[in-house]
Amino acid sequence: MTNATKIVITGCSGRMGQMLIKTVLENDKTELSGVVERSGHDWVGRDVGEAMGGQALGVTVSDDISEALKGADVVIDFTAPQATIQFAKAAAEAGVAHVIGTTGFSDAEIEALAEPAQETAIVRAGNMSLGVNLLTQLTKKVAAALDEDYDIEIVEAHHHHKVDAPSGTALMLGEAAAEGRGVDLGEVSDRGRDGITGARKKGDIGFAVVRGGDIVGEHEVMFAAAGERIVLRHMATDRAIFSRGAIKAAIWAAKQKPGAYDMLDVLGL
Amino acid sequence: MTNATKIVITGCSGRMGQMLIKTVLENDKTELSGVVERSGHDWVGRDVGEAMGGQALGVTVSDDISEALKGADVVIDFTAPQATIQFAKAAAEAGVAHVIGTTGFSDAEIEALAEPAQETAIVRAGNMSLGVNLLTQLTKKVAAALDEDYDIEIVEAHHHHKVDAPSGTALMLGEAAAEGRGVDLGEVSDRGRDGITGARKKGDIGFAVVRGGDIVGEHEVMFAAAGERIVLRHMATDRAIFSRGAIKAAIWAAKQKPGAYDMLDVLGL
Amino acid sequence: MTNATKIVITGCSGRMGQMLIKTVLENDKTELSGVVERSGHDWVGRDVGEAMGGQALGVTVSDDISEALKGADVVIDFTAPQATIQFAKAAAEAGVAHVIGTTGFSDAEIEALAEPAQETAIVRAGNMSLGVNLLTQLTKKVAAALDEDYDIEIVEAHHHHKVDAPSGTALMLGEAAAEGRGVDLGEVSDRGRDGITGARKKGDIGFAVVRGGDIVGEHEVMFAAAGERIVLRHMATDRAIFSRGAIKAAIWAAKQKPGAYDMLDVLGL
Amino acid sequence: MTNATKIVITGCSGRMGQMLIKTVLENDKTELSGVVERSGHDWVGRDVGEAMGGQALGVTVSDDISEALKGADVVIDFTAPQATIQFAKAAAEAGVAHVIGTTGFSDAEIEALAEPAQETAIVRAGNMSLGVNLLTQLTKKVAAALDEDYDIEIVEAHHHHKVDAPSGTALMLGEAAAEGRGVDLGEVSDRGRDGITGARKKGDIGFAVVRGGDIVGEHEVMFAAAGERIVLRHMATDRAIFSRGAIKAAIWAAKQKPGAYDMLDVLGL
Repeated sequence: MTNATKIVITGCSGRMGQMLIKTVLENDKTELSGVVERSGHDWVGRDVGEAMGGQALGVTVSDDISEALKGADVVIDFTAPQATIQFAKAAAEAGVAHVIGTTGFSDAEIEALAEPAQETAIVRAGNMSLGVNLLTQLTKKVAAALDEDYDIEIVEAHHHHKVDAPSGTALMLGEAAAEGRGVDLGEVSDRGRDGITGARKKGDIGFAVVRGGDIVGEHEVMFAAAGERIVLRHMATDRAIFSRGAIKAAIWAAKQKPGAYDMLDVLGL
Repeated sequence: MTNATKIVITGCSGRMGQMLIKTVLENDKTELSGVVERSGHDWVGRDVGEAMGGQALGVTVSDDISEALKGADVVIDFTAPQATIQFAKAAAEAGVAHVIGTTGFSDAEIEALAEPAQETAIVRAGNMSLGVNLLTQLTKKVAAALDEDYDIEIVEAHHHHKVDAPSGTALMLGEAAAEGRGVDLGEVSDRGRDGITGARKKGDIGFAVVRGGDIVGEHEVMFAAAGERIVLRHMATDRAIFSRGAIKAAIWAAKQKPGAYDMLDVLGL
Repeated sequence: MTNATKIVITGCSGRMGQMLIKTVLENDKTELSGVVERSGHDWVGRDVGEAMGGQALGVTVSDDISEALKGADVVIDFTAPQATIQFAKAAAEAGVAHVIGTTGFSDAEIEALAEPAQETAIVRAGNMSLGVNLLTQLTKKVAAALDEDYDIEIVEAHHHHKVDAPSGTALMLGEAAAEGRGVDLGEVSDRGRDGITGARKKGDIGFAVVRGGDIVGEHEVMFAAAGERIVLRHMATDRAIFSRGAIKAAIWAAKQKPGAYDMLDVLGL
Repeated sequence: MTNATKIVITGCSGRMGQMLIKTVLENDKTELSGVVERSGHDWVGRDVGEAMGGQALGVTVSDDISEALKGADVVIDFTAPQATIQFAKAAAEAGVAHVIGTTGFSDAEIEALAEPAQETAIVRAGNMSLGVNLLTQLTKKVAAALDEDYDIEIVEAHHHHKVDAPSGTALMLGEAAAEGRGVDLGEVSDRGRDGITGARKKGDIGFAVVRGGDIVGEHEVMFAAAGERIVLRHMATDRAIFSRGAIKAAIWAAKQKPGAYDMLDVLGL
């Protein structure tokens, strides 16, 4: 496995951290070279395999990112904005690529990632699923190819615990559709239809929301005209696709020049 | 064609009236025995085939319902509540069955149909499509069979001209689901989700609305639990299904004893 | 938990056995009262919780079914036909209900279950998912309600490891449709369409097969006529629904008189 | 309407010819400048509006293509290969663009269109629906972006009169998928699954066929991997989309330089 991509995982005790570790171990093109938790966490100093309740992996949980990055090719990081900015600086210094799945950045925090991106490759994406990123790209292309005779509707379904509607991914798809069509989503968005709404306004982008069971996440972009419909659809049935997307990004990032990238770059779209 | 059901069509110049006439002519178990329009309409006195822009049919448009009903087995009526009440009285006197597709009745107007229903068979339904009526029945049964671990969601899609949301049929499906589950739809209805809605409330019946293109009408009732979903779905792709449903009801009604019926009786469910 | 249903699981070391144990432990209306493995298996004599790699549960793996059944209300059994027949006899003697998810019985083997069913309640079903059983029932009803103008098509999708087509469940749905319509599936089955097939024969029941990814199991029964379609659909996204169905059957069976039952009885359809 | 595109329709008495004429008349960017039928047809010499059973349109049915093309911008032609080759020559001479929806060309016949395409713009496509052409293009792109971990399955549904399976459009989508992936469809095509098929072979492109009711045409390309699916779907609900696609191609073709084009050029993809 001398050519395997050597990967460090931050936030290793969390649900996403543990899933990332498992995905790295399962993939024969990747190798777990380090894991990081915050100082004071009781996993620090333990073998991460044992901490996860299984066999020893020979990798000790560290609270020192710079130490953990030694000999690594890339760090995968689904933590929080402030921690991510620190990790980005450390990765830039160490010349290690950085895959960021963290969400909730302010504009200023995003700005803070620009400098490290001059020193190392940074891939950042709010949704690491290959499928969703591909769907976003397709949505933009189709919206650009078709005129307003094609009504755009976005339908999404998620589990009954979800508290926001429409989903962030549905809104991202709406942005992509609006961008493809050259309009501002804020001006054409048609959400929460209920009651006497009047006829649909031409050019609007509609949203419909389904909540039920344990649906992981389904998104559909419909372009409906007289006599025909085009539908682009993504179904996630297993959260592991998000960690697999991150590992794919990591393998790719390890070979790139410094710069700021997203999943569309990884996909080569 | 001596055994064909002899049918009278009211409101014969309207879009639905003309579609009903065509459907009667196409069906080899039915015969057009009379057509009615309101007094003063310029079709009155003309051959209805010629009035429709085609060949003569040997049936003259009448403004006298009692005259038109002579020799008929059943009258099909998609007009307006007040006219329908008059037609019901005339049909009861003539001993002719009455199929009513008229909508928008007040409770008092519905009450006024009770007396004629003691003299003749009356089939009344807000949606004459066999499929939608079957879907309503299935929805009630499934809602009764499954507990609240199955979240009920109703998704409907219609053309961009539709002004109300959710559709009347979607609400009828919601009523059927609530009835099956023994709850009041008004108390569990979850419509127009948008923004920070919080987690879905157990026992709710959700509605989602899609508007686009020239979609005739699609309704889906989803029962979503952990690990599985049951979906009952109806797609209408041609408005002619509504007139075909009416003709099926007419053939059935012609053989029934006096009484008030709906499409579920016609379907034998 | 004095009123909890006391459940014995056979074949406890297998994938299904372990899933059943977890489902019993998670459900607050059930209690694990015994587990069984075949003589010679290295789990025999060990605490089943520890054998599964977790904490002790205070339940020892037995190779003696009669011993294990003491004090139990019901035994759940997904093993093999010959073992199941032995378990049925032991359950009948002990007056314990028996839920059978075992498949692959010959007619003679099914016959052998008739005698025990005179002594205790036996629920047997090839697919313990509530949703699939409900779908089967609905399919029969709808097929009986609609005439041959509604073409029946069954579409199923499964993961790429599946070796047979159409799935056993798809064929069960086909049988239900044929029974509803009063025909013999063997005579109307239209499978594997490819090439110049000629027009679809009226009355046929068609099958279409999709294979891809890790799809757990999706089945769709379509009734397509001119201008409308009714679609009944089931999606399984987690194999746990099969063990949950078995536990539901067990709770129900524990309260029944002796007799042979299936999941439709459990569902009360 | 001085800037309207002036259009000639060939085969004007046929179902497609009449639909094209209606579509030209409805579109305010187009004008009907001539119509053609074969010599000896009883429509020749009559006003085409009257021949179609309606009002006079001031356009006489001609059997002389060169005469009909005078003053026209483009001719739309859904006839037969040999007639189309003659029309192509006449259009090239007259400097009129040529939109060809004719199908069933031999390689030699396609070759015969190369010379006229040096003199005028020729748009030729087996399916004039914008949606289907877009779907084909998307299929190729997605197949190129995703590796063989994504199983490709193509599902199509058509009315019960259709005699071939899978549909020509489904096969066209399969070709696009194979091209995107850099493989030969003939070697990876998996059709008509039935019986003990064994596990799905990695890299295969599967086809499933649904036949029922009056379904105009539905095509779905699924890319199914572990934990996610991407689905690209087209639904045609009205045959008029094919004539509208042809009119769109005509307006576009009238402004192009000589050359051979297809619908992807028209769509600007």
